Amino acid sequence: MKLATLVSGGKDSMLALHKASTEHEIVCLVGVISENPHSYMFHTYNLHLLDAISSCLHLPILKIPTKGEKETEVEDLERNLEILNVDGIVIGGIESEYQKRRFERICSKLGIELVAPLWKCDVWDMMREVVSKFETVIVSVSAMGLDERFLGKRLDENVLNELKILNEKYGLHVAGEGGEYETLVLDAPLYRKRIVIEDSKKVWQGDSGNLVVKEFRFEEKN
Amino acid sequence: MKLATLVSGGKDSMLALHKASTEHEIVCLVGVISENPHSYMFHTYNLHLLDAISSCLHLPILKIPTKGEKETEVEDLERNLEILNVDGIVIGGIESEYQKRRFERICSKLGIELVAPLWKCDVWDMMREVVSKFETVIVSVSAMGLDERFLGKRLDENVLNELKILNEKYGLHVAGEGGEYETLVLDAPLYRKRIVIEDSKKVWQGDSGNLVVKEFRFEEKN
Repeated sequence: MKLATLVSGGKDSMLALHKASTEHEIVCLVGVISENPHSYMFHTYNLHLLDAISSCLHLPILKIPTKGEKETEVEDLERNLEILNVDGIVIGGIESEYQKRRFERICSKLGIELVAPLWKCDVWDMMREVVSKFETVIVSVSAMGLDERFLGKRLDENVLNELKILNEKYGLHVAGEGGEYETLVLDAPLYRKRIVIEDSKKVWQGDSGNLVVKEFRFEEKN
Repeated sequence: MKLATLVSGGKDSMLALHKASTEHEIVCLVGVISENPHSYMFHTYNLHLLDAISSCLHLPILKIPTKGEKETEVEDLERNLEILNVDGIVIGGIESEYQKRRFERICSKLGIELVAPLWKCDVWDMMREVVSKFETVIVSVSAMGLDERFLGKRLDENVLNELKILNEKYGLHVAGEGGEYETLVLDAPLYRKRIVIEDSKKVWQGDSGNLVVKEFRFEEKN
């Protein structure tokens, strides 16, 4: 099947794309861009990174603007996915029934398939795969135990062990499915070049924060 | 017909979109993003502005990465336009036969229509329409008589008169079809909000230069 993959720039959508690509042809990325002015900085910041990922994967990206209201977002996505000539879409959802039901409804209306390669997977296996295959950094944190120190950290075995401890202590979702942390994939097997962060800034707001990537460059891979 | 419009951010594609929208439904914007590392700064800069325009028009944008080699660019465009479910594409070409032939070939292969509302139009009429309908600034100049002073200038009646003088003196194409100058449309009748440049920098290289938009914001329209 020819598929489009919904991307946020993070590890879940990238792993879903990676897995789906072994059986299907990924022809396009899709990013939903919120117009909510309150997230304007984050928004601009994301734009850069989604474009960089599109460039690394050498895949076109359909960017869908939305006003950022909960149910309108789903309608905007549905109306705009209609213009894509694909057999289905790939999502990185692991266990959010809320999200999956909405995607199922959209796909059913459009008569296309929903491919969710990470659905109900073992999160520990998944995280080990992320750590071993991708170069991923943490770009936002918003949960008990995740302090400023985590921003910009590479997701490796050590961080995975720290997340495990926080999981046991506070019940933190190790893959951050509830938004506990967000990531950016700088390199992946399908990337033709990697993203190198040249300048970034930590923005900390008491109990949560994010890493603003101010400058980056591409590095060719052999 | 449901159409996609090729956009660069400038006045030609915006006027073409404006005219096509009176008879057809524009469902998507398409931007070709060169991966040529030598134009990396310009590239990043464009990314911002195309996304801003997509947001102003509340239309999704398909961004197609290309290595930026002359003929590969056309192949990349063709392969990627195939994933769009549209009846045709709109281009802003005025008199470049080279460009139009290539678009005609692509559309013929894909079995879709080519809509070129500005083709062989009277450039003076066109420029008067641009000046009266759009808020446009000059973002790059590369021609005899176009100095640093023009960067960031709003394209109004006065600038149009200056272009007319340069046309008589040096044969400058008044619409800049040969790349003599490039523009950015900050506001248009179809924009739901306008782009306001907050901070910009003139980069001058002896006989040509461009305006780097460093920061911008959106302003709501009534």
